[in-house]
Amino acid sequence: MRHQAVEVCRVPCRGPGDLSGVQALADAGRLVAADIVAVMGKTEGNGCVNDHTREYASVAWCHWLAGQLGCSPTEAGERVALVMSGGTEGVLSPHFTVFTRRWIDGPAPAGPKRLVIGTAQTRDFAPHELGRAAQVDATAEAVREAMREAGIDTAADVHFVQVKCPLLTSSAVQRSVDTGLEPVTRDTYESMGYSRGASSLGIAVALREVPRDAVTDDVVLRDFSLYSGRASASAGIELDHNVVIVLGEAAGAASPYRIAHTVMSDAIDGRAVSGLLAAFGEPGRLVNLLAKAEASPDGRVRGERHTMLNDSDINATRHARAAVGGVLASLAGHTALYVSGGAEHQGPAGGGPVAAILHLGDPA
Amino acid sequence: MRHQAVEVCRVPCRGPGDLSGVQALADAGRLVAADIVAVMGKTEGNGCVNDHTREYASVAWCHWLAGQLGCSPTEAGERVALVMSGGTEGVLSPHFTVFTRRWIDGPAPAGPKRLVIGTAQTRDFAPHELGRAAQVDATAEAVREAMREAGIDTAADVHFVQVKCPLLTSSAVQRSVDTGLEPVTRDTYESMGYSRGASSLGIAVALREVPRDAVTDDVVLRDFSLYSGRASASAGIELDHNVVIVLGEAAGAASPYRIAHTVMSDAIDGRAVSGLLAAFGEPGRLVNLLAKAEASPDGRVRGERHTMLNDSDINATRHARAAVGGVLASLAGHTALYVSGGAEHQGPAGGGPVAAILHLGDPA
Amino acid sequence: MRHQAVEVCRVPCRGPGDLSGVQALADAGRLVAADIVAVMGKTEGNGCVNDHTREYASVAWCHWLAGQLGCSPTEAGERVALVMSGGTEGVLSPHFTVFTRRWIDGPAPAGPKRLVIGTAQTRDFAPHELGRAAQVDATAEAVREAMREAGIDTAADVHFVQVKCPLLTSSAVQRSVDTGLEPVTRDTYESMGYSRGASSLGIAVALREVPRDAVTDDVVLRDFSLYSGRASASAGIELDHNVVIVLGEAAGAASPYRIAHTVMSDAIDGRAVSGLLAAFGEPGRLVNLLAKAEASPDGRVRGERHTMLNDSDINATRHARAAVGGVLASLAGHTALYVSGGAEHQGPAGGGPVAAILHLGDPA
Amino acid sequence: MRHQAVEVCRVPCRGPGDLSGVQALADAGRLVAADIVAVMGKTEGNGCVNDHTREYASVAWCHWLAGQLGCSPTEAGERVALVMSGGTEGVLSPHFTVFTRRWIDGPAPAGPKRLVIGTAQTRDFAPHELGRAAQVDATAEAVREAMREAGIDTAADVHFVQVKCPLLTSSAVQRSVDTGLEPVTRDTYESMGYSRGASSLGIAVALREVPRDAVTDDVVLRDFSLYSGRASASAGIELDHNVVIVLGEAAGAASPYRIAHTVMSDAIDGRAVSGLLAAFGEPGRLVNLLAKAEASPDGRVRGERHTMLNDSDINATRHARAAVGGVLASLAGHTALYVSGGAEHQGPAGGGPVAAILHLGDPA
Repeated sequence: MRHQAVEVCRVPCRGPGDLSGVQALADAGRLVAADIVAVMGKTEGNGCVNDHTREYASVAWCHWLAGQLGCSPTEAGERVALVMSGGTEGVLSPHFTVFTRRWIDGPAPAGPKRLVIGTAQTRDFAPHELGRAAQVDATAEAVREAMREAGIDTAADVHFVQVKCPLLTSSAVQRSVDTGLEPVTRDTYESMGYSRGASSLGIAVALREVPRDAVTDDVVLRDFSLYSGRASASAGIELDHNVVIVLGEAAGAASPYRIAHTVMSDAIDGRAVSGLLAAFGEPGRLVNLLAKAEASPDGRVRGERHTMLNDSDINATRHARAAVGGVLASLAGHTALYVSGGAEHQGPAGGGPVAAILHLGDPA
Repeated sequence: MRHQAVEVCRVPCRGPGDLSGVQALADAGRLVAADIVAVMGKTEGNGCVNDHTREYASVAWCHWLAGQLGCSPTEAGERVALVMSGGTEGVLSPHFTVFTRRWIDGPAPAGPKRLVIGTAQTRDFAPHELGRAAQVDATAEAVREAMREAGIDTAADVHFVQVKCPLLTSSAVQRSVDTGLEPVTRDTYESMGYSRGASSLGIAVALREVPRDAVTDDVVLRDFSLYSGRASASAGIELDHNVVIVLGEAAGAASPYRIAHTVMSDAIDGRAVSGLLAAFGEPGRLVNLLAKAEASPDGRVRGERHTMLNDSDINATRHARAAVGGVLASLAGHTALYVSGGAEHQGPAGGGPVAAILHLGDPA
Repeated sequence: MRHQAVEVCRVPCRGPGDLSGVQALADAGRLVAADIVAVMGKTEGNGCVNDHTREYASVAWCHWLAGQLGCSPTEAGERVALVMSGGTEGVLSPHFTVFTRRWIDGPAPAGPKRLVIGTAQTRDFAPHELGRAAQVDATAEAVREAMREAGIDTAADVHFVQVKCPLLTSSAVQRSVDTGLEPVTRDTYESMGYSRGASSLGIAVALREVPRDAVTDDVVLRDFSLYSGRASASAGIELDHNVVIVLGEAAGAASPYRIAHTVMSDAIDGRAVSGLLAAFGEPGRLVNLLAKAEASPDGRVRGERHTMLNDSDINATRHARAAVGGVLASLAGHTALYVSGGAEHQGPAGGGPVAAILHLGDPA
Repeated sequence: MRHQAVEVCRVPCRGPGDLSGVQALADAGRLVAADIVAVMGKTEGNGCVNDHTREYASVAWCHWLAGQLGCSPTEAGERVALVMSGGTEGVLSPHFTVFTRRWIDGPAPAGPKRLVIGTAQTRDFAPHELGRAAQVDATAEAVREAMREAGIDTAADVHFVQVKCPLLTSSAVQRSVDTGLEPVTRDTYESMGYSRGASSLGIAVALREVPRDAVTDDVVLRDFSLYSGRASASAGIELDHNVVIVLGEAAGAASPYRIAHTVMSDAIDGRAVSGLLAAFGEPGRLVNLLAKAEASPDGRVRGERHTMLNDSDINATRHARAAVGGVLASLAGHTALYVSGGAEHQGPAGGGPVAAILHLGDPA
């Protein structure tokens, strides 16, 4: 019987196009390109509309994988789920988290559940579909497909779902308007929020956190009581469809890793994360935290006014990543964390999901 | 015998010119304008060269005090030490911390040391003096004067020294160059760091943390092993001299407040602050944390690269305030904290001093 | 018979709160505070949501006028139309254009039409009214009132209408949403465009450039074929109603000034402005250009892509002011020009109105 | 006898990595990759330290050329002089100007001088050499080499010299400081100015505009009376040496292009450029303007204060490109212009060189 062994390595980089650390791991035999299933990168752009570091890093990965796998860069990009999240504000450190998976024949381990991973993709979206029910449904279907691919039977075993979704550029807006299809917004920066929001509601539907019939076009970015506690969505200019990565646990996996999640109730809820780390109850080394951050849409944190939403010099997502990055780094003890901005329908308004990946048996 | 009773109140605002919260306290008889000794504000500008919110808030305070005290706005500004620190990045919330002091005749309280405050000012500096030994010496002298004014005998009882210092505008640079006096830098943003650095070395000299003969023009922004663990300096466009506020404890004070300090060793050293809060050992309500934040000048936090110093869209001081603000707010439980950017010679490189003010006997 | 004599002076400043140049003119007897009708300022903030320099300058003017007029700052602000436009990107230079008006008894001059000015205000708007027909209608009514006040009989004699209008802050958005009244947008930056757009359509209606029944909530920021060639609207955080200033010409005025206007068809249409300046046909000194600038909403200038609308580091209005400021300054020969950003329904999409004020008989 | 035929094409792009326009020209036989000598690109990053769009575009070009030429990307980058200048603020439009050169055997054309091009490179610089005499001398030598390669005998026939030069990152600063070699500045953004300045003085020395013995370390960014009227230098993070492109005219060239230059005396000196365009005296189509822009270091333009140097939200180079881009586009009639920021020692303080390339005989 086949069972999977997932490995996770976190690799620093000196810039969005720098894969020398990845190459060094490959040279040392510690990373086999053919086993790579997904890469979740933090790149040092602004994380907003004109953040070309995401695309640059993706292109660099495609070229590197192409060289390793003997295929074209385009084929490499289709084979591996590449999710680049822009923005390393504050102490955050640019890096790539690389997930490999190997299928092993023979009797599956009998112990407790261990880390598994699965991926899937939606079709391309038309500009007017972004931020609306069409994106919700296609995402939900892709999450279910990725769960099957990961060997996860029950939504309770899913601990993090990462989606990379498109945004609207001004030319896409214009194109859509010209054909009489009004997009959900004409503001390019705002479109990122809509795309993340609809994608996250799709995750919530797939994980049965929100019933499908509660979701209409109108609730997106409106009814924040509807959310997923395990969703993470990043919008980028470099794709027209959604890419989905499901991380969870399953019995019979041979991975020496565990994953668990919590929900920060607001941007300074360090207590939730301390609790998450304490709850593993097994010795291990924290590989990474995967977290979402956002400026509370009511303009307040614990009753005090914040200025993130009124700042026309620095977008709110940048502020939020910087602040939550500080909170998490003070608990994790390192700064190469995956903190992604814009948590619409990802955790409660102003808060967000956090997952922790633990490498077992190696506390150093 | 006269002894002092210091009160501290933290007042939120809706904008840099909004003193409606202050007025409400005055109307309620909870704040007497004539008792105000110092105001430390966080305003919502960029905290850098062209942050006019600091000046705007100062002007608003001068007008308000003038109306209350029956003097001119200029006289009001000379009577009260107004220190406005710009930048409420991330979760930080704009507010004013108002220090009042009343002199009471009669036997001094016999209990343990309590909060005291003192202020002083230097002469105006010429542009070429900023960031050099002339500024160091004048600041040291003003710190000693403020200690005497506060009734503090020993440097060990000083827990926080706030300095507001000038910066170089491009016209000041030009003026100095035209007269043959090369300023320490021609870059206006960089001049803020030099002015903060020299002021902080002045504090370190006054508090005997650094011997005077270790300080020359050349060590400013060069030798970061020289620092004060209790200095906080903010540069602003609105003044030409240094304003000094000394906060500490003294026996015989009638203030229902305590103050203590620690030093964060880096931007994510939450542990130092947890320890500080735990060490009071008395029940009380945390009024405020006063902290300095900076991007580690070696480009790393615990060995991982940060991108703050290479970011030409957002200045490093803004990143640092956002990150450290997150760390501190997650511990303090509120976000109206005094976190000031640019910690040159204020704590070790990349770290910074933190003081906590506790209102005794009122844990709610 | 009474007739008016308008004077216009352009005064530089060293910062948003600096009225020393104004004071000097008053001291020299060249500016009488009681005659001041309107001030149009360019201040050095970001011109977007959190630009506190506009409010700071307005407060400084109110205090100065109060001292001169012997009234309260609030009364001064109601007496004079203060319009502060933020943003002096590129070569633009911060300054105030001060309009005074004196009523003279006796026979009116028999010569050609000369500069006149009139002002008016709307009522306060509720957050959900901004950017919608309610704002259009109230603005149109105020323009008609200001024309009457200026002594202008026909719309053809109006050459520039300046409106200062409110924006939505995140707290106003929240307040409106809480009461079930969905504002036109929840994005604070975007609300500035809606407020400017509805105000400008109000001007177009009053000047009969657009028929009233062509205007519904739906055309605002949608149908850019509807516009005024003489409208200029600036949004600011410091007011809840619209302030209207009408500039035009009328027979019988004793002002030694002329005003004329043109429309730039796009951001680089310097030819239109050269033509405007040449068309006066009388010797004179150009006092100021009053102009609107915007990033073409179709993402192109003369067929070439621009990047202003996709830039998440610098808002599009800032780019547009910088570029158009360069174009105009190269023609005017000086940089203290009134170039205001965000030209929705103010001239054609991507272009904008420009008015020129000429002081007659003084070419120096 | 061999003589050269240079062709110049200006190609728009949809992003820093988009070479579809270039590919289309190649597919149509209008661009032969093997003939490409140099590419001068404008990319849509911030043009400052962390502008990764320059590197991304260079990488894209290297990969494209490698595919066309059958060599490695690295070899392609060594074969073609790739100069990417970041920053398309205001109306400027991202594009690539591609220079090809073909050597033709047979009798050289007998007509007037025509466009020629030559390139060269310096050695790699150590961090402490940047902005100092070492960089000046190496650049001067490379300019002379590029002139020889272009077939230009006399400095008078050189009309534009483009240099791409390195900058200091914070890690380079640290490395240099650690080895006891103080770099010219520790501020990464400021290092770009020093590198551009020293490179431009190198050009001035080579073109005999400044005598070699007038240049010492101390005059860089200090004595702006020393400058070249034909220098253009851009600093970037992606290289450690200087790349030099010389553009000029020579007898015997078969290129259907002319080039000429002027110097703008300040940022709004449109008159100089009008004169340049009029002076060709031959019918033709303007292919591109190549220009340098900078914020006047004395803080004024024609006596009026500008705010570019005190703006901590937008770097001065970005302001200057936006403003000068507007001035030039209003004259050229299109916006895909090569306007590069930071004109230290490139033209007089606050002004800058401008070259125009005219395609003869094709006014459409």
